[in-house]
Amino acid sequence: MHAQDPFLAKLGDARLAAKKLANATTTQKDAALEAIAAAIEQGVDEIVAANAQDLERGRESGLGEGLLDRLKLDEARLRGLAGAVREVVALPDPVGQVVRGSTLANGIAISQVRVPFGVIGAIYEARPNVTVDIAALALKSGNGAVLRGGTAAERTNAVLVALIQRAVGSAGLDGEAIQTVDEFGREGASRLMRARGYVDVLIPRGSAGLISTVVQESTVPVIETGSGIVHVFVDASADEETAVEIVKNSKTHRPSVCNAAETLLVHRDAADRLLPRLASELVGEGVLLSGDEAARALAGEISAAGEETWSTEHLALEMGVRVVDSLDEALEHIERYSTRHTEAIVTRDYANAERFLAEVDSAAVMVNASTRFTDGGEFGFGAEVGISTQKLHARGPMGLQELTSTKWLVRGSGQIR
Amino acid sequence: MHAQDPFLAKLGDARLAAKKLANATTTQKDAALEAIAAAIEQGVDEIVAANAQDLERGRESGLGEGLLDRLKLDEARLRGLAGAVREVVALPDPVGQVVRGSTLANGIAISQVRVPFGVIGAIYEARPNVTVDIAALALKSGNGAVLRGGTAAERTNAVLVALIQRAVGSAGLDGEAIQTVDEFGREGASRLMRARGYVDVLIPRGSAGLISTVVQESTVPVIETGSGIVHVFVDASADEETAVEIVKNSKTHRPSVCNAAETLLVHRDAADRLLPRLASELVGEGVLLSGDEAARALAGEISAAGEETWSTEHLALEMGVRVVDSLDEALEHIERYSTRHTEAIVTRDYANAERFLAEVDSAAVMVNASTRFTDGGEFGFGAEVGISTQKLHARGPMGLQELTSTKWLVRGSGQIR
Repeated sequence: MHAQDPFLAKLGDARLAAKKLANATTTQKDAALEAIAAAIEQGVDEIVAANAQDLERGRESGLGEGLLDRLKLDEARLRGLAGAVREVVALPDPVGQVVRGSTLANGIAISQVRVPFGVIGAIYEARPNVTVDIAALALKSGNGAVLRGGTAAERTNAVLVALIQRAVGSAGLDGEAIQTVDEFGREGASRLMRARGYVDVLIPRGSAGLISTVVQESTVPVIETGSGIVHVFVDASADEETAVEIVKNSKTHRPSVCNAAETLLVHRDAADRLLPRLASELVGEGVLLSGDEAARALAGEISAAGEETWSTEHLALEMGVRVVDSLDEALEHIERYSTRHTEAIVTRDYANAERFLAEVDSAAVMVNASTRFTDGGEFGFGAEVGISTQKLHARGPMGLQELTSTKWLVRGSGQIR
Repeated sequence: MHAQDPFLAKLGDARLAAKKLANATTTQKDAALEAIAAAIEQGVDEIVAANAQDLERGRESGLGEGLLDRLKLDEARLRGLAGAVREVVALPDPVGQVVRGSTLANGIAISQVRVPFGVIGAIYEARPNVTVDIAALALKSGNGAVLRGGTAAERTNAVLVALIQRAVGSAGLDGEAIQTVDEFGREGASRLMRARGYVDVLIPRGSAGLISTVVQESTVPVIETGSGIVHVFVDASADEETAVEIVKNSKTHRPSVCNAAETLLVHRDAADRLLPRLASELVGEGVLLSGDEAARALAGEISAAGEETWSTEHLALEMGVRVVDSLDEALEHIERYSTRHTEAIVTRDYANAERFLAEVDSAAVMVNASTRFTDGGEFGFGAEVGISTQKLHARGPMGLQELTSTKWLVRGSGQIR
């Protein structure tokens, strides 16, 4: 079908194959995943050769070192990728799980069970490992996947998708369930956003600009994975060691990821006691601090903050520091600047802890824990699909369960109304 | 804020009030609902007078009798509406329900709890009772609501919203949580669809055209409530009485609603035995039948079907009838024409029942039961928000639970990564 339009033909193929995949058993899907892992290991030379072409093209077109590093696949990374696929084998299959059910007064038995979405679309940038990750998670959850991985990784993705299709086929399932639309360029991304009826849900992963474009332009339902302007509030009663450890870990453990902290709020009644040490420990870790007047009065290493200090996701060793008069002022600051990803309070006060948990409107709200714990792996969900910062369908770390919809099974014996 | 823009000012008011409402107790919310019910009963004269103006304007502008009837509120209907609000009081409050949780290996306790979305937008047509229904369901689930109920009911809705705001205020909550944007006309509907950041989810209720417009144009996440091209498949082994009762009930019990059947598929091996009686019983109930050649050969009362027979939601006493060679052909027909609302099989064959349940990709899939059971009230969810035909977030009858998001509460004692 749609032979006249190669783009729609690919999406139609994925849809048809996904329909068969929806009723595959866990054993069949796990065999396909194992075949993918083995194919990656056996295909190292082929993948690395294709990747070398992408890298060369990237260098010629002036890609930065950071992007080139994200683009690069070598033997060690490929072995890691095969290992990640095997971890998906070990995860429980969400399809068929019964969410709830009951027997109605008239004797009809209803049960709500998890079913695959159908076809998942993914739009991402530069990182070809995402191609394998998303394909594996889609397969395990019974979904097809249409992938748009960016022009920079086009050769690598083409080899990876061909290899995945063959591996899935060799395990007796329909490899057409996984497709790439990289060869259609930007047009492919735009059309994917409007492929309502072919694609059931679209997941953008990448820069804030990419995600915003998808959210604005897509007519396919989107799960927004998000940027994190993440706050740590050190309350008046905070324990010193706990505050230092959590603030340092939240900011410096891996500054380039979305659950890293960007802003430190310190209660005025704790500022004299804690802010000088917090600042010097952060500076000792190489963090550049920008702060308000009150913070700068207490520690010398803080440059003057501006509005952009509070509204920027730095994803680097930079942090804003502000002294607030009260828990209320901290909550107001968070309400205004948070991207609703993760916020934490460090406190010994029960009422303040509970109020913070109740009133902060973010995907994860924490007491006395590092913001770095907002993570699918840490939460026990296994592989990472992304962290949703929207409120519809999925919020926070997304596991396989979030890649499913549900349907109602209704078993009667002739009942009518 | 936004005093310069009256539209955004209203949305800002709703947002601020909703933030307070999110942490109101069930007792407070139930008191507000009781105040609304009482205010409707006490306000009958005022509401009926405003409604009379809308009705007069409707007659002058040539609204049909069906629309005028949907627009009309009289004392009996208003008492019914007050009763519906009191039914919402009796429903369990979804806010704060713990969905799942665990203690991680490091001692951190995580729990996923239901929280309100924030502000729900609703776009609907002509029926002012929806104003009260949505406001009540939004309040109970801790959400604000911004309502666009259509120009035809503008006076009635204005009186109802003012009355709701006063009633909510009298119960000690912030009545600004409920707002109407009817006075901004079509522009108000368009802006509501683009009010990302002000409105968390948009629910269109009404004609297929309205829903399609909202789905195409909205940048706010939408829950699609849907049209139903609903199928009943009478399998080869179907019991005669069961088939007759279910087909008749599915088609004729209330033909104007989305869970009413539109197409009857009969297995060839049952057609001689069952189709003549099915046709004559349906015709006896006043149903106009259109069918394929095989169906027409077995019953005289069937006119010739065309492509539009299978692809139209009649919402009337009209039905398509087709003879299929096999369960596979029935599944193919359903895959092609279904709007994925509800489908039913009538069978005595266990394997066919299970295959139908597994392979039909609809919000509700039934064995030996009337399609009319796809309904929030019948499923035990209480009041009806609508029936979702999308796969993201909610699928099938939506209860109060579907008007909530979740957040993760993370309670630590100083853990870092």
